[in-house]
Amino acid sequence: MSDLRIAVLGVGMMGVFHVEALTKRIRGAKVTVISDFFDSKAQEVAAKIGARAVVDPIEAINDPEVDAVLIATPGKAHDEQVNACLNRGVPVLCEKPLTTDVGSAYRIVQKEAGLGRALIQVGFMRRFDPEYIALKKLITEGGLGNPLMLHCTHRNPAVPDFFNSEFAMRDSVVHEVDVARFLLAEELTSVQVLKGSATKSAPEGTSDPMLVVFETESGRIVTDEIYVRTGVAYEVRTEVVGERGSAMIGLDQNLQVKTTDGRWGGRLTPSFVERFGAAYDTELQRWVDAARAGTIDGPGAWDGYAAVAVCEAGAEAVRTGAKVTVSMQPRPGSAASATSDGSEPEPGITAPDLMGARP
Amino acid sequence: MSDLRIAVLGVGMMGVFHVEALTKRIRGAKVTVISDFFDSKAQEVAAKIGARAVVDPIEAINDPEVDAVLIATPGKAHDEQVNACLNRGVPVLCEKPLTTDVGSAYRIVQKEAGLGRALIQVGFMRRFDPEYIALKKLITEGGLGNPLMLHCTHRNPAVPDFFNSEFAMRDSVVHEVDVARFLLAEELTSVQVLKGSATKSAPEGTSDPMLVVFETESGRIVTDEIYVRTGVAYEVRTEVVGERGSAMIGLDQNLQVKTTDGRWGGRLTPSFVERFGAAYDTELQRWVDAARAGTIDGPGAWDGYAAVAVCEAGAEAVRTGAKVTVSMQPRPGSAASATSDGSEPEPGITAPDLMGARP
Amino acid sequence: MSDLRIAVLGVGMMGVFHVEALTKRIRGAKVTVISDFFDSKAQEVAAKIGARAVVDPIEAINDPEVDAVLIATPGKAHDEQVNACLNRGVPVLCEKPLTTDVGSAYRIVQKEAGLGRALIQVGFMRRFDPEYIALKKLITEGGLGNPLMLHCTHRNPAVPDFFNSEFAMRDSVVHEVDVARFLLAEELTSVQVLKGSATKSAPEGTSDPMLVVFETESGRIVTDEIYVRTGVAYEVRTEVVGERGSAMIGLDQNLQVKTTDGRWGGRLTPSFVERFGAAYDTELQRWVDAARAGTIDGPGAWDGYAAVAVCEAGAEAVRTGAKVTVSMQPRPGSAASATSDGSEPEPGITAPDLMGARP
Amino acid sequence: MSDLRIAVLGVGMMGVFHVEALTKRIRGAKVTVISDFFDSKAQEVAAKIGARAVVDPIEAINDPEVDAVLIATPGKAHDEQVNACLNRGVPVLCEKPLTTDVGSAYRIVQKEAGLGRALIQVGFMRRFDPEYIALKKLITEGGLGNPLMLHCTHRNPAVPDFFNSEFAMRDSVVHEVDVARFLLAEELTSVQVLKGSATKSAPEGTSDPMLVVFETESGRIVTDEIYVRTGVAYEVRTEVVGERGSAMIGLDQNLQVKTTDGRWGGRLTPSFVERFGAAYDTELQRWVDAARAGTIDGPGAWDGYAAVAVCEAGAEAVRTGAKVTVSMQPRPGSAASATSDGSEPEPGITAPDLMGARP
Repeated sequence: MSDLRIAVLGVGMMGVFHVEALTKRIRGAKVTVISDFFDSKAQEVAAKIGARAVVDPIEAINDPEVDAVLIATPGKAHDEQVNACLNRGVPVLCEKPLTTDVGSAYRIVQKEAGLGRALIQVGFMRRFDPEYIALKKLITEGGLGNPLMLHCTHRNPAVPDFFNSEFAMRDSVVHEVDVARFLLAEELTSVQVLKGSATKSAPEGTSDPMLVVFETESGRIVTDEIYVRTGVAYEVRTEVVGERGSAMIGLDQNLQVKTTDGRWGGRLTPSFVERFGAAYDTELQRWVDAARAGTIDGPGAWDGYAAVAVCEAGAEAVRTGAKVTVSMQPRPGSAASATSDGSEPEPGITAPDLMGARP
Repeated sequence: MSDLRIAVLGVGMMGVFHVEALTKRIRGAKVTVISDFFDSKAQEVAAKIGARAVVDPIEAINDPEVDAVLIATPGKAHDEQVNACLNRGVPVLCEKPLTTDVGSAYRIVQKEAGLGRALIQVGFMRRFDPEYIALKKLITEGGLGNPLMLHCTHRNPAVPDFFNSEFAMRDSVVHEVDVARFLLAEELTSVQVLKGSATKSAPEGTSDPMLVVFETESGRIVTDEIYVRTGVAYEVRTEVVGERGSAMIGLDQNLQVKTTDGRWGGRLTPSFVERFGAAYDTELQRWVDAARAGTIDGPGAWDGYAAVAVCEAGAEAVRTGAKVTVSMQPRPGSAASATSDGSEPEPGITAPDLMGARP
Repeated sequence: MSDLRIAVLGVGMMGVFHVEALTKRIRGAKVTVISDFFDSKAQEVAAKIGARAVVDPIEAINDPEVDAVLIATPGKAHDEQVNACLNRGVPVLCEKPLTTDVGSAYRIVQKEAGLGRALIQVGFMRRFDPEYIALKKLITEGGLGNPLMLHCTHRNPAVPDFFNSEFAMRDSVVHEVDVARFLLAEELTSVQVLKGSATKSAPEGTSDPMLVVFETESGRIVTDEIYVRTGVAYEVRTEVVGERGSAMIGLDQNLQVKTTDGRWGGRLTPSFVERFGAAYDTELQRWVDAARAGTIDGPGAWDGYAAVAVCEAGAEAVRTGAKVTVSMQPRPGSAASATSDGSEPEPGITAPDLMGARP
Repeated sequence: MSDLRIAVLGVGMMGVFHVEALTKRIRGAKVTVISDFFDSKAQEVAAKIGARAVVDPIEAINDPEVDAVLIATPGKAHDEQVNACLNRGVPVLCEKPLTTDVGSAYRIVQKEAGLGRALIQVGFMRRFDPEYIALKKLITEGGLGNPLMLHCTHRNPAVPDFFNSEFAMRDSVVHEVDVARFLLAEELTSVQVLKGSATKSAPEGTSDPMLVVFETESGRIVTDEIYVRTGVAYEVRTEVVGERGSAMIGLDQNLQVKTTDGRWGGRLTPSFVERFGAAYDTELQRWVDAARAGTIDGPGAWDGYAAVAVCEAGAEAVRTGAKVTVSMQPRPGSAASATSDGSEPEPGITAPDLMGARP
């Protein structure tokens, strides 16, 4: 099957992030058209990846070389653009929010329902995060009994000054709104905001942090501490408190569960697939990219030889019980210099910081 | 650039694992030829992905529709196959071991050196794992001072009976051999094996666990506890003990460092890129795959509408300080049923277990 | 100085708990008088420790052989008993609550103030817990900047049915009230209770869990999830969210801090005093108790000999680099049987459970 | 029963540490006689606690006012002093080592056996540490199956230069020798020392770190990494690897176990006794000490009143569902100043460091 030809609307930070993924890591996709409010930005990004820049986003949506649309424009532009996608009947991945007011959002829902076909996907990407998936699975399979409360924490190290209390609600809390709906599988019915002492980093009139309290259809309580100027790091934590145990994600230590046998802990990695599956993919992608350029990008023949030499000595040590000296030939010079040590981080992902292990 | 056309030799567990990645997740690659000792197995795998089965692996390597070769055959077959790749001058990713004896491995090193071009990559995939990369970076940047000792632990839940002490050395310890060389950037010069009490699960005559002790060129000590019938899980742990601190990976809790300020801990996730970068990729890949089939595979328009409705009420709650009821329209029926909740695990990766958060 | 002679009023669970400590572990104290609503219970406890049972608690307070009073009676009895202590001018340790209504509590405050001498101590024992002390110190020394929010979690595995929502407020939340006052060093000015879905284990009409939200004088928000029928364990967690970082205790992993350098972690045990100080005390107390009975209660001469034998061989191994066989004499029989292996838990403390390390 | 009258021999660091415990925290004991090689030091310590200084340690042992002896002199002095205790038939707690050579140690074992009475206890205090007790219990109850290997790590931040490789064996490794014997309940039969790269902080000729490998009677392997100039902290870690799981202590996170159900984790604190038992003891000891001085040392009447006031408002909030303002009377001035906030650390224990929660 030929690649999906995608128009990306809006190439600010998120748009560029998506263009890079679609160009370097995602299989079966091709960005053919770029559009942005600033046409020069669109042209710059398009030039890098061999796509076309189109000034009018609606024209981009209707381009005959476009099979699907990714919308990363500001929220105000979404209504018209999503509607244009529905009009043409092309799949669209729309960054949150769907639109900026309830009326237009509902009209889109109705319109899509009238088409009888799911065309619109909204960018709540936490549903694809392994920790949220594991937490959802734990709830669904009854591991916590009936979930009674949900505690969310959303902390950003810093945001610009225009990020006021209402903006925080629409831009950050919106993620927890979807997380709560996703995990509890019901709608939220009320919301209350408790504003306490604000950090000095917040502009006059902005409440930061805030405590947001939701109720759900069935009467569950969902709390969300939203604090976007912590100066610390990006911290997103979710705890589900159930009738038969509780579980927390976001501790930088994977999913941890407390159960009615009085234990806390997590599941050990069951096999190499879970532990090193991503490393295998990275290895393959980098090897494929290097092989297309006629070289390698990882441990080479010398590394293979050295391992054989040591393990051969090791096998003798197993048999004899003695200390065995490893004997190695000199390393030939020519190919060596081309041998990467594989220590560079995966392309397209920011280099892991000194002590951070998460890719 | 056209996709890299790959011949996969050997479609046992690892070969199939690689074929799946190359077909579903790796961009720029295409498996065109499959070969296996059991031709029917090769035909079965080839049929699924639209490739050709070729009986003779050397013929597969020399196939005009093959740009690169992935070798996942048993170690005994590697020597001839890798040499054939060198003869034809095609890039090859060879699963460990490079070959099964030192002499043939060194001849390959020499032959590649003679070509003056790095064609052979060996499948030590831990070098691509974020935790090992972070540990390497920490060492290289001097965060631990001079590394003095390296303690490795390699535990498997279970292995077949033919997995005897010598096999464990060649098949499992080989990974730690490469890890030690990768992290310490020097060769191993001696090896000693200490065999203690064996688990009852081990066959008569097999020492399991064993303690393997290496020395390096500069006199460092590397220990490796190898224990392949723990009945517990897949546990791979590495601790570097340096002159100015120590660090451990493999605790299922990311890289943890102990430093001379008397603290232990890790780096918090600095931004959404590190925390949710993989989730974004998964979201995009699944959306691309779904869009090519004319549908979506994630949160839909209704989810977008619900979030807008709640956040609009939330914004009012921010302004008024009161509890605000969320008002929502009825959900239209038709498109809803097509809306996935995004909770299925990524295709091609084993479903995460009840409490396991690692993908 | 002679021992403090103490009257213990009320020997239900808490009273007995205190009597045991005062008799076995606390230095400088002696329980001389016991009083309880059920006189037979008082007599039983008194008989065990060589104290006198006194029917009337006020008479017990005024007993000439009483220097201080420990009140562990039900809250309703506290007003009269504390006043009697003030009347006589004896120090009193009163389990919470001080009294059951604000008016009587304030009259006691005034009366003590009139005496010009602090006689009343209230049993908020968390102020003596090392984790709370460390958290208080961290706040006081400015390690978190201005504390903005405080999140408390108080979970019990099970409680009797009379433990309704109001009882939970007065008996459990009261601890978090003191914790908040202790940590933030200011008064609480308002309280709100959010009741959500209740666990099926709660009787009809009882809201369990509840979310209690306090405001403080300076406008800080304090949340407390109170959930007393979790079926899991005793979980008490406190997180302080400050302007320059956050810190959490109660994770069963000691105090963990997140700081503006983007790190999480804790302080490593700086010396043997912190790591093994309590073990030394336990060793001494058990040895003293055993020595008074003419025996030992810990590792004996044989253990000392065996260690010398091994370390002497070890010293030779250090010098020679070779494997040295340890040579040991036969173990004499007679004294051996009296040698405890020291594995019994400290008297007076419930045996640690299979996997629990906290004493 | 009257207090045990103890002679403490040697008041260097450990001796003073024990004198303080015996004087302030241990019930039923009284230090009556102090002896030290430096008589002025003995006189200084004795003066502080109302004991007598005696120049000759043997005379101190035979003093009629001595019921038991605590030996904290250098190892060279132990042989004569322990023998004197046996001669007089008094119980003795002897800091490790029992003596400095195998012959004298064994003669003591024989002599005590001849008495038919256990008089000698050796100061291996780890047997009294809750984590070691929990680990021992886990092994004894079969939770790990047959223990196959034991990995110990003993790291000190710094030691004086006289602390050479052999000294490390006799002074530090000796603890792991006892730990191995305690946990595995069998003797060690051989020892081997592997010396690798040494830290620059070690004097010429001193191997630091070293890897010490023991074998046990039944053929188990015990490893001990001994590294006494890490510059980091006091780190003592022990991992038992068994046939049915493994467990580690010393992670500053309590006992953690990995089991054949593929889980890692720990036991949650089952009740307030385990969580706050030590806090209760501290509260009581400090209150007793304060009461003997006619005052309090913890939360006072005002704290009790404030809690009642808040909880009374809280109870109303439970009933009404509304936000209830807390109304409080003014705080009377006089007694307030005497009210400690209880935040000072336990007397006799070094103040917990900024981020450390262990007492």
